[in-house]
Amino acid sequence: MATDRVREILSWYAGNPPGVLANMARMMYHGALAGTGKMVILPVDQGFEHGPARSFAKNPEGYDPRYHFQLSVESGCAAHAAPLGALETGAVEYAGQVPLILKLNNSDVLSKGENPCPALTGTVKDALRIGASAIGFTIYPGSGARNTMYEEVKELIAEARDAGLPTVIWSYPRGSGISKDGETAIDVVAYGAMIACQLGAHIVKVKPPTAHLEQGDAKKVYEAQKVPVSTLTERTRHVVQSCFAGRRVVIFSGGPTKSDQEVLDEQREIAKGGGFGSIMGRNVFQRPKKEALQLLAKIMEIYRAG
Amino acid sequence: MATDRVREILSWYAGNPPGVLANMARMMYHGALAGTGKMVILPVDQGFEHGPARSFAKNPEGYDPRYHFQLSVESGCAAHAAPLGALETGAVEYAGQVPLILKLNNSDVLSKGENPCPALTGTVKDALRIGASAIGFTIYPGSGARNTMYEEVKELIAEARDAGLPTVIWSYPRGSGISKDGETAIDVVAYGAMIACQLGAHIVKVKPPTAHLEQGDAKKVYEAQKVPVSTLTERTRHVVQSCFAGRRVVIFSGGPTKSDQEVLDEQREIAKGGGFGSIMGRNVFQRPKKEALQLLAKIMEIYRAG
Amino acid sequence: MATDRVREILSWYAGNPPGVLANMARMMYHGALAGTGKMVILPVDQGFEHGPARSFAKNPEGYDPRYHFQLSVESGCAAHAAPLGALETGAVEYAGQVPLILKLNNSDVLSKGENPCPALTGTVKDALRIGASAIGFTIYPGSGARNTMYEEVKELIAEARDAGLPTVIWSYPRGSGISKDGETAIDVVAYGAMIACQLGAHIVKVKPPTAHLEQGDAKKVYEAQKVPVSTLTERTRHVVQSCFAGRRVVIFSGGPTKSDQEVLDEQREIAKGGGFGSIMGRNVFQRPKKEALQLLAKIMEIYRAG
Amino acid sequence: MATDRVREILSWYAGNPPGVLANMARMMYHGALAGTGKMVILPVDQGFEHGPARSFAKNPEGYDPRYHFQLSVESGCAAHAAPLGALETGAVEYAGQVPLILKLNNSDVLSKGENPCPALTGTVKDALRIGASAIGFTIYPGSGARNTMYEEVKELIAEARDAGLPTVIWSYPRGSGISKDGETAIDVVAYGAMIACQLGAHIVKVKPPTAHLEQGDAKKVYEAQKVPVSTLTERTRHVVQSCFAGRRVVIFSGGPTKSDQEVLDEQREIAKGGGFGSIMGRNVFQRPKKEALQLLAKIMEIYRAG
Amino acid sequence: MATDRVREILSWYAGNPPGVLANMARMMYHGALAGTGKMVILPVDQGFEHGPARSFAKNPEGYDPRYHFQLSVESGCAAHAAPLGALETGAVEYAGQVPLILKLNNSDVLSKGENPCPALTGTVKDALRIGASAIGFTIYPGSGARNTMYEEVKELIAEARDAGLPTVIWSYPRGSGISKDGETAIDVVAYGAMIACQLGAHIVKVKPPTAHLEQGDAKKVYEAQKVPVSTLTERTRHVVQSCFAGRRVVIFSGGPTKSDQEVLDEQREIAKGGGFGSIMGRNVFQRPKKEALQLLAKIMEIYRAG
Repeated sequence: MATDRVREILSWYAGNPPGVLANMARMMYHGALAGTGKMVILPVDQGFEHGPARSFAKNPEGYDPRYHFQLSVESGCAAHAAPLGALETGAVEYAGQVPLILKLNNSDVLSKGENPCPALTGTVKDALRIGASAIGFTIYPGSGARNTMYEEVKELIAEARDAGLPTVIWSYPRGSGISKDGETAIDVVAYGAMIACQLGAHIVKVKPPTAHLEQGDAKKVYEAQKVPVSTLTERTRHVVQSCFAGRRVVIFSGGPTKSDQEVLDEQREIAKGGGFGSIMGRNVFQRPKKEALQLLAKIMEIYRAG
Repeated sequence: MATDRVREILSWYAGNPPGVLANMARMMYHGALAGTGKMVILPVDQGFEHGPARSFAKNPEGYDPRYHFQLSVESGCAAHAAPLGALETGAVEYAGQVPLILKLNNSDVLSKGENPCPALTGTVKDALRIGASAIGFTIYPGSGARNTMYEEVKELIAEARDAGLPTVIWSYPRGSGISKDGETAIDVVAYGAMIACQLGAHIVKVKPPTAHLEQGDAKKVYEAQKVPVSTLTERTRHVVQSCFAGRRVVIFSGGPTKSDQEVLDEQREIAKGGGFGSIMGRNVFQRPKKEALQLLAKIMEIYRAG
Repeated sequence: MATDRVREILSWYAGNPPGVLANMARMMYHGALAGTGKMVILPVDQGFEHGPARSFAKNPEGYDPRYHFQLSVESGCAAHAAPLGALETGAVEYAGQVPLILKLNNSDVLSKGENPCPALTGTVKDALRIGASAIGFTIYPGSGARNTMYEEVKELIAEARDAGLPTVIWSYPRGSGISKDGETAIDVVAYGAMIACQLGAHIVKVKPPTAHLEQGDAKKVYEAQKVPVSTLTERTRHVVQSCFAGRRVVIFSGGPTKSDQEVLDEQREIAKGGGFGSIMGRNVFQRPKKEALQLLAKIMEIYRAG
Repeated sequence: MATDRVREILSWYAGNPPGVLANMARMMYHGALAGTGKMVILPVDQGFEHGPARSFAKNPEGYDPRYHFQLSVESGCAAHAAPLGALETGAVEYAGQVPLILKLNNSDVLSKGENPCPALTGTVKDALRIGASAIGFTIYPGSGARNTMYEEVKELIAEARDAGLPTVIWSYPRGSGISKDGETAIDVVAYGAMIACQLGAHIVKVKPPTAHLEQGDAKKVYEAQKVPVSTLTERTRHVVQSCFAGRRVVIFSGGPTKSDQEVLDEQREIAKGGGFGSIMGRNVFQRPKKEALQLLAKIMEIYRAG
Repeated sequence: MATDRVREILSWYAGNPPGVLANMARMMYHGALAGTGKMVILPVDQGFEHGPARSFAKNPEGYDPRYHFQLSVESGCAAHAAPLGALETGAVEYAGQVPLILKLNNSDVLSKGENPCPALTGTVKDALRIGASAIGFTIYPGSGARNTMYEEVKELIAEARDAGLPTVIWSYPRGSGISKDGETAIDVVAYGAMIACQLGAHIVKVKPPTAHLEQGDAKKVYEAQKVPVSTLTERTRHVVQSCFAGRRVVIFSGGPTKSDQEVLDEQREIAKGGGFGSIMGRNVFQRPKKEALQLLAKIMEIYRAG
């Protein structure tokens, strides 16, 4: 079952305890892309982040967190990510059927402050207790509260590492330091990805970046050095490069709901640019199950080919 | 004594230690609704939350916390909930006669800040020491201090779980992020209920929601997807659905004092919508005892029939 | 549901945390003898103590620990006592259906030393985790290792008390200090019972004593003071008196398998002598289920009448 | 020496460890009011709270903390309360001559912020070390820092209880939530007293309330329910009722220096309203010793008669 | 991938944290017997237990612990068990390729005392760090030091459970309480298996029992009740029954080196008797690799058919 590609990827993480590698391997040897070094992950923190109706009214089966477990299992996702409460509903029923990533912090939109910062809603002990293969954590580079998040994740990565668990960082720049367009600007996304790597992330999750350049000093360099960022393929390549020259697994979120064609086009560009995979929520679970499975199958086919 | 319905409800909580299930069962096999999977709980945190005269002057017997123990026992409530001091007055005299829920945080109205946050007034050790069957905790989604509450309850749920105690979360959205009307808006109540579930609540308590829609992004979805929320029955159904598709026990508070007819009409709608029961304070203990017992009997009859 | 008799018994334990009283009450308000202040408990530590075939070959249904849960529930026992592993097999399935007593130490007969001493096989945390209402502990007064046991139980009682759990002490004198006959001699059994009380036991379990007098100095006093110990009724009365003048619940084990008639005669004498009940294992679970239930019903009838 | 009245009062605290009751009894069986269930306590935290000259210049003997010990002993006070430093000066010399209450937090007036909060200046270990019979703690309901105080006292009560020590809470509403007049308003004082009880106080100390009603919502209820609060006797009765229907010992402070006649009139009304006694500082120790002793004797006479 | 049989087996462990079930599932869904509920495990603690030459001279490739990892992976074993040092040699290279069981205690034969007791050579933290799916522990019922082992494993099971790891107990009766023949006597092996279950083992490993009956009291019962123990099939059935009526996974060791035929005959009887599988060391790794793989394939075929 072991493949050279997975062995190569694991070699980038040399020096981590064997348990961290074993759990990385568990995800990379699981599901439809097993052994390819590519990962498609189903994340379902939408309920916490946007509220139940905005997340699930379109496809009401999704109100039951076990529906998402079932989707992850049937589609052959490499892992299933969610907050604690949701994972606990299916952790016994689906024990051993799909690697789990426990999201340890989460935000809601009932209260909005100037310095966005998710609440800690789970622990490394919870991750072990429910049998998760990794922890997940969101940082908001650009927020006035970024240090709180960076320092929290520093502690959690260390604790998780001792427990044999790798860490997936959701790097979502936002806050008073960044414009709305800037949140997905290529310079900002690449910067956020690198911060995640520097903090010790084993896997980094970013949003697909746009060609916008947010920061003046950065813009000058991108232009002077003619860094190619006009296509998503080029931008993906730049983000991958920004993650220690491609020696960290970086995957891309799906963002707001769009058509099958749009999703697949985006994924093709990401795959072509060297992206390691997709972590797509709303575009999956807001579709009827049959369509969701078909879409996931097509996405996985893209990465298998890529 | 064991019933299929209670067994089914307990199955939703698989993965919890047996003690948590045993204490859930203790409440569900106790009192007038024993075995139905429905719960009517008498909460008496009013004294702490609103002060003594506002709470008890109308029916001065209520100044004695043992009066409320007696009410809970005589009426056959599934549990009796109160802060530490009040529970300690009757915990010996009523030992073993009604399951207790120790409210671990409480607010008073002598001081009002922008970011409401209750004080921790009890511990899991207190709950064990006085023989409680669960802990209770209030969160205010929408408050600028919500992260403090979410993180406190995360720790308490974990400690309580290890000690075999389930957690009841009072989810009361309020604070600078939400208008006064928004506190009971259906989108907000459903969202608050889901947050409680995601945090790991075993039982969720919410206020009966109104048809108001508070948040713009949510409103669009409710309208686009035609989520029916015009009657309390429909809104209850939506809240129940938002609690992991009905796989968490969610009960509804009684709110401000109103007529018997109004109380019973409200309860009928909640029962019809699939609500698991009622946690009603003022509308019970501010009535003379005889009337309170009659009202509780009628409410329980509604849930038994439902 | 509350009765004067149970209230009276609980008053003997004033000064304990309410949780200890609540758990005492849970056992005394449960099952066929609810409210009488009498208790019949089903103990199944036989498998550990004597091995599987000696315990269960006669009635092979007993190999499954859930069979004993079912017996306890159907017969209406006040509690079900067993070691950790056995209780874990049924703690979820029978959650809330019968109070559990977790035996925290156990002996096997594969190794016999001069100074018998059971091994600690569970903890107070285990008791909480599985939802037990009490801990159980065996002491061997007369063993050269008695201090180990006394000091272990001193710590466990304190920890259990803080957690709201009462302690049942199995007081079984044995060891180099006592002859085989002496193990059930009235002077020795009464002495062992008092030691359990002095150590802080809430409930004491002893073997039905014989008229034998083991210790010379004691014998002189029994004879000089004409302490009546010729019938089991008299001996029971003496043991009850030795437990703080009857202010501690003391119950009697069933001993080796015997006929229904013998069992019932013994129980009648114990009930007449003021014994609080029976904790009978082999004589129950080595009979076919139907007979076991009939026997338990008759025993409970004796205590209800008594 | 034991009296039915003290036994009755102790019964309200059932469930506490015997040591807490023993220390309550030590105070109630000590001094001039021994056995009556009434208590006059001499508190000397004035030096810390107002500075030395404001406290003691009028009667310079008071600069020596042992002077206050001597006053407490000679007058037959039930207890003597002070901060750690002061108690340490006389704890050896007066060992065993008067029960001590160690005030564990104290404020000074050198710094005043918006959210008043006393400093922790002693520990439960200190209380044990110096042989105190209780700990004392001040809360400021109405302060923005109230949660800090509530959470501190929650921990201290638990620690003290385990050590067999009862807790006296000085409940002094103040802070941005309350006007200056509101600090002694009857609705606020009654509310503050109830909060102290809910937090687990064994003895509550409040200021004699005025007829002012501070909070709009409360005022409506007092008027609608015609709660009588026009005389101090009536207001005392209301405060006592607000302390779990009179099942917690509540005592009243003396406030600013006034004439003997004013002091005694106030005490008569408090006694008539069911107050359990007086905890009076400045009005005692700022008088010459002889006058102080005479005043205390008259006050005690009022409570003995009442 | 999930099968009804594995789901059924996992249901026996209800009440364990989901992580324990997930790790049980990881082993039962891995390798050549994935999904059957049967397990063949390769244990290599021989080096520690018997010394290097006695273990590996016959097939010197075995001196390298990675040889055994490779054997486990190639043969499709459900898990690979060894002491810490050995597992660390291959944990990185074989990360994610076979579930690991970390043996936490081990004995050597350089020193033999009267009361055999293995040394603790690893920790639960080690198990997590290297990514193991279970811990292993050896008990010697019959040893004068059995209490030490029982109490050690009690603590380790609790710690491992919290970390989501199941426990495999090697139950090997030996010591002064048992004759050499008695170590594999059916009464003793069944008793040792039951003790492991009572202590909380998730998986029990025993030696294939002989028809010898060691203990007098037990022998009487086996004969009186006509418990069939003349064939290995019958004895396996009796051991399975002694493990909570078959509700715990019990697997059988291979013992001293023997011919292929003997090994396979033994395995066939164990499979027929309901044994859950084999944990065979010397008979595997002392054969040349090719023969070892063939033998393992044949054994797995027996269990797949059974």
